[in-house]
Amino acid sequence: MQETQDINPNAALTLKLTVLKEKLVDAVNQVMKAISSKTTIPILTGVKITAGLDGITLTGSNSDISIRSFIPLEEDGNENAVVHTPGQIVLPSRLFSELVRKLPDEEVHIEVDSRLITKIISGTTEFSLNGLDPEEYPNLPIINESDVFRIRKDLLKDLIKQTVYAVSVTETRPVLTGVKWIIQDNQLNCVATDSHRLAQRSVTVDKTEDSGTQTLVIPGSSLNELSKILDDDDEQMVDIVMTANQILFKSHNVQFYSRLLDGNYPDTSRLIPTESKTTIDLGTKALYHAIERAALLAKEERNNVVKLRAEGNQVEVSSQSLELGRAYETLATEKFEGDPLRISFSAKFMMDALSKVDAQNVRIHFVGPMRPIIIRPIGDENILMLILPIRTF
Amino acid sequence: MQETQDINPNAALTLKLTVLKEKLVDAVNQVMKAISSKTTIPILTGVKITAGLDGITLTGSNSDISIRSFIPLEEDGNENAVVHTPGQIVLPSRLFSELVRKLPDEEVHIEVDSRLITKIISGTTEFSLNGLDPEEYPNLPIINESDVFRIRKDLLKDLIKQTVYAVSVTETRPVLTGVKWIIQDNQLNCVATDSHRLAQRSVTVDKTEDSGTQTLVIPGSSLNELSKILDDDDEQMVDIVMTANQILFKSHNVQFYSRLLDGNYPDTSRLIPTESKTTIDLGTKALYHAIERAALLAKEERNNVVKLRAEGNQVEVSSQSLELGRAYETLATEKFEGDPLRISFSAKFMMDALSKVDAQNVRIHFVGPMRPIIIRPIGDENILMLILPIRTF
Repeated sequence: MQETQDINPNAALTLKLTVLKEKLVDAVNQVMKAISSKTTIPILTGVKITAGLDGITLTGSNSDISIRSFIPLEEDGNENAVVHTPGQIVLPSRLFSELVRKLPDEEVHIEVDSRLITKIISGTTEFSLNGLDPEEYPNLPIINESDVFRIRKDLLKDLIKQTVYAVSVTETRPVLTGVKWIIQDNQLNCVATDSHRLAQRSVTVDKTEDSGTQTLVIPGSSLNELSKILDDDDEQMVDIVMTANQILFKSHNVQFYSRLLDGNYPDTSRLIPTESKTTIDLGTKALYHAIERAALLAKEERNNVVKLRAEGNQVEVSSQSLELGRAYETLATEKFEGDPLRISFSAKFMMDALSKVDAQNVRIHFVGPMRPIIIRPIGDENILMLILPIRTF
Repeated sequence: MQETQDINPNAALTLKLTVLKEKLVDAVNQVMKAISSKTTIPILTGVKITAGLDGITLTGSNSDISIRSFIPLEEDGNENAVVHTPGQIVLPSRLFSELVRKLPDEEVHIEVDSRLITKIISGTTEFSLNGLDPEEYPNLPIINESDVFRIRKDLLKDLIKQTVYAVSVTETRPVLTGVKWIIQDNQLNCVATDSHRLAQRSVTVDKTEDSGTQTLVIPGSSLNELSKILDDDDEQMVDIVMTANQILFKSHNVQFYSRLLDGNYPDTSRLIPTESKTTIDLGTKALYHAIERAALLAKEERNNVVKLRAEGNQVEVSSQSLELGRAYETLATEKFEGDPLRISFSAKFMMDALSKVDAQNVRIHFVGPMRPIIIRPIGDENILMLILPIRTF
């Protein structure tokens, strides 16, 4: 890489580096996911840049999550960056992220002087920004890496997708805004519930040491952000490090820290009925689309309720709006066992659940019009979804 | 097409048709652009369906524009629709447009009975909607097609794009929210100004009769909507019919009506300086991107101003934010004639203008720091853009 011309030859530089624009853009995009413009701590509106002897680290944080993205000086034999003077600076994150995306040249030169004035030079463009004091930036939690397990990235993303949608969105019981993870032997079991519905999935993970049963509750919002920064290199492994109040996910050059939720997560196993009076197998997509159409009318009413009537190998989905009219639709079942049934439920909850299923068919267990409905993808016994019905009959 | 089973065999049907879902979706999408949920006339929240002997017409309208989309029974040898019973109905537009998109089968059957109950059947789905009385739907203006001219669709879209951005968005002088069209012989000249900037373009049109000079002012919002419904079959011609208070655009199976604006549009020709003290040729994209970067700082300040300094074959673009810092950038000129210059202007106005230019280079004429700036694409003398500078020096 070319050496950039020194703009302030007389001022002592506290940081000087050259980096490929593309690498910087990727790293900024990742750490921006942790930065909120609504933070009450001014320094956290910034992105921290640390230039070290092995590479450049960007950090973004809010009170819940912190993300660190590392750009190694070299990678796969290609030069990503040159650090002329190691150092650190905090820059206004929104401006910096927009700016790096729009820089004209494929290389970016950054120089910081002792007054925190930061020059960003690329091609014929030169910005001179007022930096923030990196000494004010809070330290990330120090995590003792004794308790680690590994999971494939695609499996972690599925696990998040299939549970996080069911967390509570209200703060009435804060612990329900998180997903409970229970690690026992090589089994990770994840549960989320907002007390009207529940989602549960278990997977096998790589774990070397046996540390007994561990339970932790991860904020749903953290898991959503984590999912967004996990790239599509699905076969990579993610290392997960647990402590009493923090969890750290390490994937390639990214580290994602989240605080954990305090409080006792309720025992959800007693919510799940063990019997079934009516069991129906249905095509996942056909059922989803029938409910989606019925919801067009249902959503005009207050409670967004659709009705399901099962009898003689047929399922009828219907809904009604006093003002607009009625909808009904019949679906052929793949299998039908047990009693005829009439039940009502939230169209949104059923669509949320069905949209997380990859399997072609689902098996639905009913115990009665006021008992929980259990939905399971056929062929994947590790997933269980539950929704409570709504009384309308 | 298959005959659908009659749902209410005893009720007299006032409309009965079968139509390809795809054709219905396209037509609904087009007329939805004229329908506003904020209308004060309840019937105008609906879409009107008229089934006639030659095809099906959908109509959507608000107080400013009306759109009619026609589905012929047959087209290019393919059957689009069958009308069993001609008639008309008005249906809630938002629900109907979402519903038709989500119907499962490629055919849609619609039946209306004398109580306005409308059955919409597709595959195993059946909706029964409460229709609105088509007698309440206002008639579209009757337009005498004596004064017609024709223009290629791609040219009409360019013409709109290159002028409508400069209309006023405030209602202080309502006539300035429109674009003035002057038709004289075979020349159409379009002008828009919000009194801080101006855009002007002229084109040659097909016109058979000579009706002298005609001037009309079309609401900018109407032209924006028109642009959206003109498809990409760019070589087609659009017929334009003018009357004293309405204009009608006819393209393929779509008719677009707009009211015209009253009031005297100001004479803009005297705003355009005829002399030039500094003339600079610059790369369109290079200038656009330099201003876009400078605007990152400028937009944090109240007036979004960037400065331009031209001297000795070079142009410097700069901006400043007290809080964040400074930006500057130098651009090589393709040509430089006249005096050195310092001038300031709105980054947004300059970017708006440059983004409408297809030409590789622009020629910019300056008369002085407080006189209008004229921008012209090099190679297209039919386009002229003007912006007023802002005093900062």
